[in-house]
Amino acid sequence: MDRTKIVELYRRSEELGGQAVTVAGWTKSVRDMKNFGFVTLNDGSCFKDLQVVMNREALANYDEISHLSGYNALVCTGTLKLTPDAQQPFELTAQTITVEGTCAADYPLQKKRATVEFLRTQQHLRPRTNLFRAVFRIRSVAAAAIHSFFQERDFVYVNTPLITTSDCEGAGEMFRVTTLDPKNPPLVSAEAAEKSGGALTAGDVDWSQDFFGKHASLTVSGQLNAENFAMAFGDVYTFGPTFRAENSNTTRHAAEFWMIEPEMAFADLNDYMDNAEAMLKYVLTTVMEKCPDELAMLNKFVDKGLLDRLHHVATSDFARVSYTEAVKILEKAVADGHKFDYPVSWGIDLQTEHERFLTEEHFKRPTFVTDYPAQIKAFYMRMNDDGKTVAAADCLVPGIGEIIGGSQREERLDVLERRIHELGMNPEQYKYYLDLRRYGSCKHAGYGLGFERLVMYLTGVGNIRDVLPHPRTVGNADF
Amino acid sequence: MDRTKIVELYRRSEELGGQAVTVAGWTKSVRDMKNFGFVTLNDGSCFKDLQVVMNREALANYDEISHLSGYNALVCTGTLKLTPDAQQPFELTAQTITVEGTCAADYPLQKKRATVEFLRTQQHLRPRTNLFRAVFRIRSVAAAAIHSFFQERDFVYVNTPLITTSDCEGAGEMFRVTTLDPKNPPLVSAEAAEKSGGALTAGDVDWSQDFFGKHASLTVSGQLNAENFAMAFGDVYTFGPTFRAENSNTTRHAAEFWMIEPEMAFADLNDYMDNAEAMLKYVLTTVMEKCPDELAMLNKFVDKGLLDRLHHVATSDFARVSYTEAVKILEKAVADGHKFDYPVSWGIDLQTEHERFLTEEHFKRPTFVTDYPAQIKAFYMRMNDDGKTVAAADCLVPGIGEIIGGSQREERLDVLERRIHELGMNPEQYKYYLDLRRYGSCKHAGYGLGFERLVMYLTGVGNIRDVLPHPRTVGNADF
Repeated sequence: MDRTKIVELYRRSEELGGQAVTVAGWTKSVRDMKNFGFVTLNDGSCFKDLQVVMNREALANYDEISHLSGYNALVCTGTLKLTPDAQQPFELTAQTITVEGTCAADYPLQKKRATVEFLRTQQHLRPRTNLFRAVFRIRSVAAAAIHSFFQERDFVYVNTPLITTSDCEGAGEMFRVTTLDPKNPPLVSAEAAEKSGGALTAGDVDWSQDFFGKHASLTVSGQLNAENFAMAFGDVYTFGPTFRAENSNTTRHAAEFWMIEPEMAFADLNDYMDNAEAMLKYVLTTVMEKCPDELAMLNKFVDKGLLDRLHHVATSDFARVSYTEAVKILEKAVADGHKFDYPVSWGIDLQTEHERFLTEEHFKRPTFVTDYPAQIKAFYMRMNDDGKTVAAADCLVPGIGEIIGGSQREERLDVLERRIHELGMNPEQYKYYLDLRRYGSCKHAGYGLGFERLVMYLTGVGNIRDVLPHPRTVGNADF
Repeated sequence: MDRTKIVELYRRSEELGGQAVTVAGWTKSVRDMKNFGFVTLNDGSCFKDLQVVMNREALANYDEISHLSGYNALVCTGTLKLTPDAQQPFELTAQTITVEGTCAADYPLQKKRATVEFLRTQQHLRPRTNLFRAVFRIRSVAAAAIHSFFQERDFVYVNTPLITTSDCEGAGEMFRVTTLDPKNPPLVSAEAAEKSGGALTAGDVDWSQDFFGKHASLTVSGQLNAENFAMAFGDVYTFGPTFRAENSNTTRHAAEFWMIEPEMAFADLNDYMDNAEAMLKYVLTTVMEKCPDELAMLNKFVDKGLLDRLHHVATSDFARVSYTEAVKILEKAVADGHKFDYPVSWGIDLQTEHERFLTEEHFKRPTFVTDYPAQIKAFYMRMNDDGKTVAAADCLVPGIGEIIGGSQREERLDVLERRIHELGMNPEQYKYYLDLRRYGSCKHAGYGLGFERLVMYLTGVGNIRDVLPHPRTVGNADF
């Protein structure tokens, strides 16, 4: 079918005005004014609709079309008429309209203004609504912008594996991946246990008989794998799914979500922050440029401060403050009468209320908090010269709190080994990771950006279930 | 650190010639000629190296550097000297060289020409070799090209979920995803079984107590979910991981691999083939343009026909032949004395030997075989008017065989329901899928491209384990 997408009509209206075109899409509304009528058609290629004008006299099946309701698939051929004085820049005067598919009377999205809660039960249909059309196009444009940002800077995209047999990731609860008989799994025999010299316990599940010959799980982070590639390609990034088997039923947590994890060789904490700030601004700017209609709708109906906030973030320098300084700011706020639910003192893990105070009330812009106490951060973060803080930085943004976490990595073999030992971890499990420090180690840094958090930020949508095509959360993996 | 990547030196050598620059990277070789020496440095930003020239007199730590062996991280500052008459267009005359990280003497990649089998045991280090540098950069460039191709055509990128509770995917064996106690899973009580009216069996594992409240698996395809979005956005694509728990230990199968699954509304079988052909040519052309050094190396050491084949495919029209016609061609070949291991007759599923004969010997170019017998294809493929073939097409390429499978989807509710019934499938499990045919159904088509197959094709590498950063296959999920 030689059809023109509606987005092309908008791009090339000058050229196409007065021409015959064929457009295929779905009805958003049909109005019958007796001798003429209007079909509002959307084909998903852009947020904007096309107004199709039909005349009873000129259209053989005028009655068929004018009686349609709900979501019908039509193919419309006609002349594109430029209407410079009307609200829309053009309309299509229909010569023929063919019905590809009608809409059964029990269409679940008939009524205007369905709640987002109801729409979560209609995940196969909700992309047809204005809200989800906007959210999922912005998601797609943001994802493409992330690839462009890193590719333009010669980063190599690495697909780190999702199935892992390392039990040492430590960033969260993991899902098991298995093909063993769930009811009668093979068990370790007394003989095998004895042979193993204490490694195996008789009567435990015998994972050596599972698909991968070991106990396997879904990864919580691709970072350690990404470092393998950073030590060859210099700058790399991942962009893929990640999992958490945490029983947390909040608006910000999903069991399956997408992460971007860049890793940069010959880079320190400032290099990471420079890169992350540039990346966020690049994505914001791209979305503002490519999705003005989507953002305008979201700004009107979802979050009235959205456009202001995006403009503000895209143009302001992010603040950078040390954790130690941040704690002083929070302590002063408490002394001045500000109430927090959680007490503040050096050594605490900052709570969302603290993060939001810093970014929303104190700095009033995105803020990197740097150099956290070692004991509240991961083992691989680089120890600072003070011996008690590490070169980590979290990026906090107004309205959300933490959106990025990152650090310079410990590149010194002896320091990293000592840290693994101190934390009672098993160095055997980190052999490959330590190898990177044995052979051509260098200063390097990286970070993780939760993609859904970013999409929530870009759209003003408050629940992670509404920015994932088909969200997976505790008790929910339908569709 | 204000460093310049080696790729930038090549891009901007005119401008940077005679200037002081700092370059950070790893040693590929160090040669000491007594009073002067050479360091071949690579920083991963491009395939090309930088030659660093050091003079004993001018470099304070000449002895330290000239004695390095293996893979050492260096930061070199000096003057970029253009050498228009030499093999390399420029070299760096070092003023200072700082060692960031040395290389322990037991570096596993010391010896030249390690086998790919050995390198699979060194997955954290193998990206440092020329072969894997080439493969994984091409993988990254190809992935970015795929996103560009679809984004330029206004396709929406959809992240379909990996965890699924549909047991109805049918495209292959699935991995179970669970957080139940593996040894003592909860079992369905006699009481619960009775209450369920036959749906549950007493003594079976009680999946209602698992994380998602149901039995969950890793998906084998995002297609059915992608269709949900195609019926709203028109043109969509997925690009993400997919899983098969198949016990097949071949050079072409992995348990975890990446797929691209475009889905297009108002499109028929020819539209899919046009799109897929354009996409493959776009990716090939982009890789040839952006990775000439990588391809030259692969053409020299891995597959001497690689460049010829890529040029040929990028510039030739793909053949299109019906399955029925293809069977006649194969039958004629048999009659003419060609030997196949598997017999040929109408109704068989084509074997790799048949596919390769068609694309390599008969058509001598990529070939779409169309309109397969319904009984060897999936339930969702559109029934042709003959009542025995479906509007499916596989794309076969010389040297590989099938690289893409796709079809027009059955958009007619009654025909689809009848097919589900005939195949003894449970229509309840397809409620959402059938809903798409109830409300605004339209002609649509889509396809699946296995990304690793494509990377194998682009690089000439014969084993899927060598195009995946960290491959997962039966018995292997290390790193």
